[in-house]
Amino acid sequence: MIQYYRHNEPFELELGGTLPELVIAYHTYGTLNAARDNAVWVCHALTANSDVADWWPHTVEADAFLDPDRYFTVCANILGSHYGTTGPLSTNPASGEPYYGDFPAITIRDMARAHALLADHLGLDRIKVLVGSSVGGFQAVEWAVEQPERFEKLILIATDAKASPWSIAVDETQRMAIRADATFGQRRPDAGMAGMAAARAIGLLTYRGPLGYNSTQQDPDGLPADALRRPVTYQRHQGDKLCKRYNAYSYVTILDAFDTHDAGRGRGGLDAALARLAMPALVIAITTDIIFTPAEMRALAARLPRAHYEEIASDLGHDGFLTEHRRLNQLLIPFIQQ
Amino acid sequence: MIQYYRHNEPFELELGGTLPELVIAYHTYGTLNAARDNAVWVCHALTANSDVADWWPHTVEADAFLDPDRYFTVCANILGSHYGTTGPLSTNPASGEPYYGDFPAITIRDMARAHALLADHLGLDRIKVLVGSSVGGFQAVEWAVEQPERFEKLILIATDAKASPWSIAVDETQRMAIRADATFGQRRPDAGMAGMAAARAIGLLTYRGPLGYNSTQQDPDGLPADALRRPVTYQRHQGDKLCKRYNAYSYVTILDAFDTHDAGRGRGGLDAALARLAMPALVIAITTDIIFTPAEMRALAARLPRAHYEEIASDLGHDGFLTEHRRLNQLLIPFIQQ
Repeated sequence: MIQYYRHNEPFELELGGTLPELVIAYHTYGTLNAARDNAVWVCHALTANSDVADWWPHTVEADAFLDPDRYFTVCANILGSHYGTTGPLSTNPASGEPYYGDFPAITIRDMARAHALLADHLGLDRIKVLVGSSVGGFQAVEWAVEQPERFEKLILIATDAKASPWSIAVDETQRMAIRADATFGQRRPDAGMAGMAAARAIGLLTYRGPLGYNSTQQDPDGLPADALRRPVTYQRHQGDKLCKRYNAYSYVTILDAFDTHDAGRGRGGLDAALARLAMPALVIAITTDIIFTPAEMRALAARLPRAHYEEIASDLGHDGFLTEHRRLNQLLIPFIQQ
Repeated sequence: MIQYYRHNEPFELELGGTLPELVIAYHTYGTLNAARDNAVWVCHALTANSDVADWWPHTVEADAFLDPDRYFTVCANILGSHYGTTGPLSTNPASGEPYYGDFPAITIRDMARAHALLADHLGLDRIKVLVGSSVGGFQAVEWAVEQPERFEKLILIATDAKASPWSIAVDETQRMAIRADATFGQRRPDAGMAGMAAARAIGLLTYRGPLGYNSTQQDPDGLPADALRRPVTYQRHQGDKLCKRYNAYSYVTILDAFDTHDAGRGRGGLDAALARLAMPALVIAITTDIIFTPAEMRALAARLPRAHYEEIASDLGHDGFLTEHRRLNQLLIPFIQQ
């Protein structure tokens, strides 16, 4: 069940803005034990929400790595998102209307600081494992670098400690598609929908990659030249689906935050920042991931003091982190329990 | 120098439309020898033109594979393009105005048939080598399957005999970006420009790939969180550049044609069609190409009766076919001369 924490002080943002009010939506699963040593914190990706059991199949269940009989799992909706935490559709107390395009620029560091406020509120001084995949991994790196003593172990899946030029180019391309829709900027929740549909389709290309499409979206042989092709309807469908559940202002706000990700900023560079992460870490790449490539993930693992690197074989690219739950549980359970 | 061939009969299209007039813009380099056995035909890609020496550096020059002292090279601008051959900005004789969105749907097969008309006009019954890269390779496969006796040798670079689900998904995503721009559809040459800029940026992502961006668009360390990043300005610049030289109607027309590519259509399937290609063929992949992956190119070579497969190592992805001219010349010259 979704819960809300209202932080009753202004929340200062890294880039200079201020949120006069901050509400954080979150989910918990399982029970914090008497020793308070069974908390697992999950950071979610781009357009996901705090309901891990919903977006990450076969993780919050008996004998999976977030088994609610063993662990107290927390996931907070990220700052700027559409799913309950303060974001562009929240009411701006200064105007009494939604922020829309006036929502201030945020960073991954701001997201991590919001998580820390919720952890304080929940009394979680010590968290057994911090888990992040994709943009969730960005938050995990930031938070762990900022408060390394809070975490016993760290799991980073298909992510990095700094946004790569390639991933920033993908983000800007999505923003170009959204800005090509002249309704983006209008003060209504469904502004920029056609642009966001195209942006989502761009995202999907990078989440699935060549093999992902070629293994799942093949048309039968002998198609007429003017047939409507499966990959065409798939891209449209994915765009439409996001438009039914998300808003373009949150989407752009989080893409912008993605680009700012650099755990080394203001900390003497990436190596100095990552040297703080003395806890055991598990770094997992998906073999066909074209966003966070195995080469990039291997380099990340090499920069962490105590990281173990693993790969999950999958045809589905970056999305393998969502679909390959069997292999994921195989890798995560012993790491968490050992 | 650009030349024009005016075909003074209606040109019937595969999908049922008719062009009452067909003009084909083309370039030639070098001289057809007395034996008429030194012709090389180059098919160009998506937004290129008939001036090979312009878009394919270090190919039309002394000791390169299109050495004008040895070969008579022809390249025709493709049907539907912006560069002189009949396309959406050409005047529709029925209305006296440009076609714009009324330009009929075309296929790669139509493009190849237009090439054949020009070859007839130039008296090239026999062509020594047919070369195509990317969408140029689509045309080369189509034409060679339709008139195999015309060609002595075939060179296919970073291309395929059928559009893959992945490449169709990339195309549809580009069209979604263009349609998100509500000016697309208006009867003016600059309709849909913001959408086409985003579409081009999508294309660029797939032409360069992760390594392409990460090796060329890295920002210096220690960038402020709100800095304008190199990959951002690069994507915008690439979009703007295309808008200054192309139109969105041609762009969509050619993307649509791309998706129809299937050399096996109406020919008993791909294996039956490719079995017609009994001439020696050279198939070349770029190691980091994420559009036409090495695995896909290897499979293409395996389906051709007499193909030799080679890879060109490059960090620049699909665009390697444009940039790795030294290695390209090394591979192509002996194949053409032997």
